[in-house]
Amino acid sequence: MTTWWDVRDANRPLAFTSNPLARPVTEAHDEAWVRAQLEAPGARFLPLRRLEALVAGEDPVLAWQDGSALRGMAEGAFPVFLGTLEGVPHFAVAVNDLETGEASRFVDARTLAAQLPATEVGILGQARALVDWHARHQFCAQCGAPTEHIEGGARRRCTRCDARHYPRVDPSVIMLVEHEGRLLLARRATAPGNRRSCLAGFLEPGESIEEAVAREVFEEAGVVVRDVRYVTSQPWPFPSQLMIGCRATAVTDAVTVDGIEIASAEWFDRAEVRAAVEGRSAVLDIPGSIAIAYHLIRGWAYETP
Amino acid sequence: MTTWWDVRDANRPLAFTSNPLARPVTEAHDEAWVRAQLEAPGARFLPLRRLEALVAGEDPVLAWQDGSALRGMAEGAFPVFLGTLEGVPHFAVAVNDLETGEASRFVDARTLAAQLPATEVGILGQARALVDWHARHQFCAQCGAPTEHIEGGARRRCTRCDARHYPRVDPSVIMLVEHEGRLLLARRATAPGNRRSCLAGFLEPGESIEEAVAREVFEEAGVVVRDVRYVTSQPWPFPSQLMIGCRATAVTDAVTVDGIEIASAEWFDRAEVRAAVEGRSAVLDIPGSIAIAYHLIRGWAYETP
Repeated sequence: MTTWWDVRDANRPLAFTSNPLARPVTEAHDEAWVRAQLEAPGARFLPLRRLEALVAGEDPVLAWQDGSALRGMAEGAFPVFLGTLEGVPHFAVAVNDLETGEASRFVDARTLAAQLPATEVGILGQARALVDWHARHQFCAQCGAPTEHIEGGARRRCTRCDARHYPRVDPSVIMLVEHEGRLLLARRATAPGNRRSCLAGFLEPGESIEEAVAREVFEEAGVVVRDVRYVTSQPWPFPSQLMIGCRATAVTDAVTVDGIEIASAEWFDRAEVRAAVEGRSAVLDIPGSIAIAYHLIRGWAYETP
Repeated sequence: MTTWWDVRDANRPLAFTSNPLARPVTEAHDEAWVRAQLEAPGARFLPLRRLEALVAGEDPVLAWQDGSALRGMAEGAFPVFLGTLEGVPHFAVAVNDLETGEASRFVDARTLAAQLPATEVGILGQARALVDWHARHQFCAQCGAPTEHIEGGARRRCTRCDARHYPRVDPSVIMLVEHEGRLLLARRATAPGNRRSCLAGFLEPGESIEEAVAREVFEEAGVVVRDVRYVTSQPWPFPSQLMIGCRATAVTDAVTVDGIEIASAEWFDRAEVRAAVEGRSAVLDIPGSIAIAYHLIRGWAYETP
């Protein structure tokens, strides 16, 4: 059997993976070391304005700046240490505004994910998730006092009760559900036109990945599944999901949707799904290639059972 | 090839999975419906005192109480809705103390995980994770104001800025690392005696499961891996991890540990690992069967390549 992995589009790695930066483990927890990196020759800073990243060029690349980027730093912001590449430290910094060259501009991460080189998309995902987390975690959930960033932004510490807070990553399951050669795709109530995708949802406390898949499919489509199998995963920085891609076999094909969150869920055969992947379907429009859903659906469309 | 799944110990499902409670999706977001469940005939309440659960009996079972359990409720606590079983609503409630029958007592969840029926361990994991999350998230991380529980405790809402806060689940990777028929097991600096286990660590923002596995193995043991494969997963309510079990192949067998967090990491052959699983090793002691590590290691020990 040809599997998902054999037919993946190797020229399009999952967006937001492929981050080449390394964090020196011991050093990254050392405040003095991280501070010294700010002054290191060649240190690079990626400005984000309202979570949009600065890019330059017609085929855009991240517009890394030198320390002068810190002059535009937003109130309460600080340079978040991302890691090093060949010894060169890289930081992300939230800015209010910045004098930039003519050719540079701020662009949102979804748009950039389809345009930047894969390694830069990886860095961008990490930068966006961390900068956003700091902005939304200025206070201690335990006691309400202000928190401060420590260790270059790897965590925060409460200034009153000393509790440590770690960046949040929210695991979510997203799944191919198949039944006798057909694939279940759902239309969210808020989705445009013929856009349909895999069922998906957040994993809840107290459940395994396999249990979360079964629960979500039953909740959203009324379908009972067996044989849940993991396929692949993707970080998704909107704001901080870990997308866990799975597949499962439906026991029956009767579908019941709530009509509120999910407007409809229907079964599509391989010919219909291939037409959608190839952009020649009049009835089915699937997510773009930055989403894990695209890769799951595309893999299913071309695999040979 | 016989795989991990074929040789799993089916009599010992992974602890904290197997929760039989269901949450009616639409109703569980309806405040009036959840409040009505508190009064429902037969509603069951699981008291937790300092996160220890009330149990009864020599072969213990959870000591579900009727609404009178609410009289012992701790300050700031409330009944957290867990779900229904055959229509009967189940809640967990943090108590300061409680008049209990002679035979009942409060016991910690790690001990109970090896003693309760599997379905009750599943409920206990959900209850512990949620009760603990509420206790540690009384304030808004965004603005510092007090938060209040809504929807039976499925989320919290800021009383000032109206931000919604969701229970946290922290994905962590734990992995079998093998090299030419031998398994890499590490001794944590804090571990007792010969206790060794799989390498493990939290997934960070901006990385996939596969990338997290490779990073952690390199950070903790200096070993480069290829072919990362997912095996299985387990919720781990201490306080709220999702353990993502994987395996990977080491490119070389040279090991370098930091000597701080990890005291040592060594390679063990199948005969040695089997002896440890069977409790007859003088040099190797592995985690107990409530941990996913036990199942990963046991599966590897008995699989036939």
